[in-house]
Amino acid sequence: MRVLVALGGNAILQRGQKGNASEQRENVQKTVTQIVRMIHAGHEVVVTHGNGPQVGAILIQNELGSASVPAMPMDICGAESQGLIGYMFCQSIQNTLLADGIEGHAPACLVTRVEVDPADPAFAHPTKPVGPFYTEEAAKKRSAETGETWIDDAGRGWRRVVPSPDPKTIVEADVINTLLEKGFTVVASGGGGIPVIRKEDGTWEGVEAVIDKDLAGERLAASVKADLLMILTDVPRVAINYNTPQQKWLEKLTLSEMEVLEKEGHFKAGSMGPKVKAALRFVRNGGQRAVIASLDEALEALEGTKGTQILKG
Amino acid sequence: MRVLVALGGNAILQRGQKGNASEQRENVQKTVTQIVRMIHAGHEVVVTHGNGPQVGAILIQNELGSASVPAMPMDICGAESQGLIGYMFCQSIQNTLLADGIEGHAPACLVTRVEVDPADPAFAHPTKPVGPFYTEEAAKKRSAETGETWIDDAGRGWRRVVPSPDPKTIVEADVINTLLEKGFTVVASGGGGIPVIRKEDGTWEGVEAVIDKDLAGERLAASVKADLLMILTDVPRVAINYNTPQQKWLEKLTLSEMEVLEKEGHFKAGSMGPKVKAALRFVRNGGQRAVIASLDEALEALEGTKGTQILKG
Repeated sequence: MRVLVALGGNAILQRGQKGNASEQRENVQKTVTQIVRMIHAGHEVVVTHGNGPQVGAILIQNELGSASVPAMPMDICGAESQGLIGYMFCQSIQNTLLADGIEGHAPACLVTRVEVDPADPAFAHPTKPVGPFYTEEAAKKRSAETGETWIDDAGRGWRRVVPSPDPKTIVEADVINTLLEKGFTVVASGGGGIPVIRKEDGTWEGVEAVIDKDLAGERLAASVKADLLMILTDVPRVAINYNTPQQKWLEKLTLSEMEVLEKEGHFKAGSMGPKVKAALRFVRNGGQRAVIASLDEALEALEGTKGTQILKG
Repeated sequence: MRVLVALGGNAILQRGQKGNASEQRENVQKTVTQIVRMIHAGHEVVVTHGNGPQVGAILIQNELGSASVPAMPMDICGAESQGLIGYMFCQSIQNTLLADGIEGHAPACLVTRVEVDPADPAFAHPTKPVGPFYTEEAAKKRSAETGETWIDDAGRGWRRVVPSPDPKTIVEADVINTLLEKGFTVVASGGGGIPVIRKEDGTWEGVEAVIDKDLAGERLAASVKADLLMILTDVPRVAINYNTPQQKWLEKLTLSEMEVLEKEGHFKAGSMGPKVKAALRFVRNGGQRAVIASLDEALEALEGTKGTQILKG
């Protein structure tokens, strides 16, 4: 089976960790152990991942370094985070395949751009907080100087918000498919991809935005004709009435059953919303099955016994 | 003809520039114009590039950001610079192909690791200055704390030096060859590649080192069986007796003629030395021809009318 695995932030950095290289490498290694279990079971895995803490750190470094070296725009910081995380994954995948005596499936990490629509309404309404926290005064000064949007982020301080447009196409799709045909384990579209728009003259340009990595993962899954989209996170299943006495874990549903629950508003934008949306889109666009599951139960979820399974029909 | 183009720092950042994103993009665009001229003339181009100023900026950002977020080791910073520069090249190559109406040759940038020998004598003698300048006092304190080697860098301040080991193999060689077979324009081994060693148990590990990008370019050229290694820089040709009344530009030489001049000590470690060494290695290892030329005359150098041409025999 060809499986697109979309990894959340916890696959690389746990909450409360500082994010030094050895912590990140250890987390990546645990994640890769799960990925290699799937490869060992005979599946073909394509990996995508979030980059929230990593691009956040890069933005802070850019900010604090800006007295000495020019800060880079968000698209370039995103590209840097793809190199950072992709390298850790490639090294770890290769070492784990070797340790398990698995031939082939060598890893390859591609710098990946993802097309967004310049007319996407998200550009008029930036919602995604990124980078360092400022005081109100500093944030308002910066906003006045740069035109950036800064908001009071849940009382924790002021923070820049950027648009989170919908992903349309994976620019490097042909490259990725070429590598999959030859049996490589591809790591691509990290952090939701580097957001680019196509201008009227047909040329491409990077934009200051962040793409949801699960929604970009759905585009990638569709581009590589994956049999299964797996969205891996730190809870075992999706629930309805989450954290109430009526809470119920969802095991196996059809697309239309899940669409009803989505319309009822069970899946919030800040938590399961984008994951459910990506899963539904995948099945709606012709995919056989989407799963939202815990990273630790990845192979079982692939085999259909764990996680929330969303099926065609 | 399959051509490996190794681009120097000036291809991305000119001396005296601050290095903001728009400057770097403009320089990359000028460089890509030369690359696309070669593609237009019917050649297959593989691109590699230096990362000195970019990884230098990332190291400074890591340093200045370290009060807030953990600094990353050099191998990871190198991976970040591959993302940064590779993204700019891909975008620019794609836009230029489009503007020139050239079909195919779509760009692909790979995170690339390069194997070095843990027994390489360079590890005992770090020579390559990287990152920020320190005062003598701060450098000595840091060195005592971390075990890093810091030296007085030509009176400009104290600076960390890291080993510059010889590149042995391109870890991602199979990936790169797969993409070349399908006609992609591959950008790989940026900054000389991420240096990795193979441990006794066979697993790979990143090391704190910097690989010369021309020497890594030779390894890449050999891996992809390039017909021609082109080392592009900011002078039109290699000279002997450089900057003396006896200065003489070199136009066309055989491998053995060039080896004689190299032994006479004409090519200094800090300037043409590694370029000449890489060119000689390429031809010695079976390559047909190597050229050291000015970026502005790339196509002419490819056609044999400009630059210093080093031929088999």
